[in-house]
Amino acid sequence: MSQNIYDDAGFFANYSRLPRSVEGLAGAPEWPALRALLPEMTGLRVVDLGCGFGWFCRWARENGAAEVLGLDRSDDMLGRARAGTADAAIRYARADLGQLDLPSARFDLAYSSLAFHYVADLDRLLGTVHRALVPGARLVFSAEHPIYTAPRRPGWSRDGEGRLTWPIDGYQREGPRTTDWLAEGVVKQHRTLGTQLNALIRHGFTIRHVEEWRPTAAQLAAAPDLAEECERPMFLLVAAER
Amino acid sequence: MSQNIYDDAGFFANYSRLPRSVEGLAGAPEWPALRALLPEMTGLRVVDLGCGFGWFCRWARENGAAEVLGLDRSDDMLGRARAGTADAAIRYARADLGQLDLPSARFDLAYSSLAFHYVADLDRLLGTVHRALVPGARLVFSAEHPIYTAPRRPGWSRDGEGRLTWPIDGYQREGPRTTDWLAEGVVKQHRTLGTQLNALIRHGFTIRHVEEWRPTAAQLAAAPDLAEECERPMFLLVAAER
Repeated sequence: MSQNIYDDAGFFANYSRLPRSVEGLAGAPEWPALRALLPEMTGLRVVDLGCGFGWFCRWARENGAAEVLGLDRSDDMLGRARAGTADAAIRYARADLGQLDLPSARFDLAYSSLAFHYVADLDRLLGTVHRALVPGARLVFSAEHPIYTAPRRPGWSRDGEGRLTWPIDGYQREGPRTTDWLAEGVVKQHRTLGTQLNALIRHGFTIRHVEEWRPTAAQLAAAPDLAEECERPMFLLVAAER
Repeated sequence: MSQNIYDDAGFFANYSRLPRSVEGLAGAPEWPALRALLPEMTGLRVVDLGCGFGWFCRWARENGAAEVLGLDRSDDMLGRARAGTADAAIRYARADLGQLDLPSARFDLAYSSLAFHYVADLDRLLGTVHRALVPGARLVFSAEHPIYTAPRRPGWSRDGEGRLTWPIDGYQREGPRTTDWLAEGVVKQHRTLGTQLNALIRHGFTIRHVEEWRPTAAQLAAAPDLAEECERPMFLLVAAER
């Protein structure tokens, strides 16, 4: 079973202060690119895998989704999510993505933001999601990019000329990586891009779009600190079709 | 128009001494993985984009291909390729992949080994290849991996603990990279993985397999120097279907 760092009080307190936690989707710089991969929401039955505070679940309903199921492993997350809406068409449930079961052919869209890199058995999860979608339905997800997760000691370095580099090692050594992000000893799963795409293909998905997120010119102008995101991708965004 | 480094005498002399030039396919460690992406060859009409010395063209015929067209921009390469066979079903022609025209629906397989990263306008080439294939036909290619092509100064470094790392920068800055490989001032094109896959999808290809090549256990046992290839991928291997 995977670590559930979101139920660690220190991690949760720090996570709750991130822009994406305070401002919701508008605080996540990759959201406009992820949104562009989504289908027209009207009438869709949506499942959100790792819904956190429920920002996307509410957005989906505001944009016409017929019903939304938000799943998360963290009781604290779900408590905040439930407190954030009185909409009866949004339902929240506790679920571990690593051991998830879903009804067959039940959803028109599966969405997941930055949750898959916590799941040790992604292959099992993708099989479950494929079965839970109707033919033609989409899976749209973001995850930490393998260039970001690969290193033993992830972090920036300076080359001989003082320029920023992101040293990679261990790209081909898939498995857990323990980092100190918001708390000590956070465990994420490193998987190559090929492994992730081939798992989707093997389960019957068709790859529709693969995006290694980069800030737009407008985002760079508004937040010059984002420039380092052009040196190496931090987020992987994928759209696949059942 | 792209640089044609293979017509540089010094480069060509050095290239001719590489294991893959002397031993052919058996001298290319990624060949078994690339071969695994190929369809059964019997009866196929094949085009090889950047055929070099013609090793693959001859292999394709030996494995049952009906006819093979080998294209290359280098007269030296083509001369060696032509000298290597008397098979009338193998034809060689001079062509610049950046300005290629091919007849429509003429081939059952398009193959390319380590040539696409020299092509500035890959998008145009992929459109040409898509039109030249019959429905259901495959495009199988290898290219230098974007993790390998991204850095301004590609090369290994040692971290604070003396361990090998591959510092990345400029991943999102697509375009030419000038390196000194076999000769000074060799120009290759850096494109993100997302850009390459999305171009395939946009032209109507279905992605069948994406492999970020790593040595097998047997290859590592036979050639321990290959271990560094586990730290970061050097080659990208893709199978797509029209």
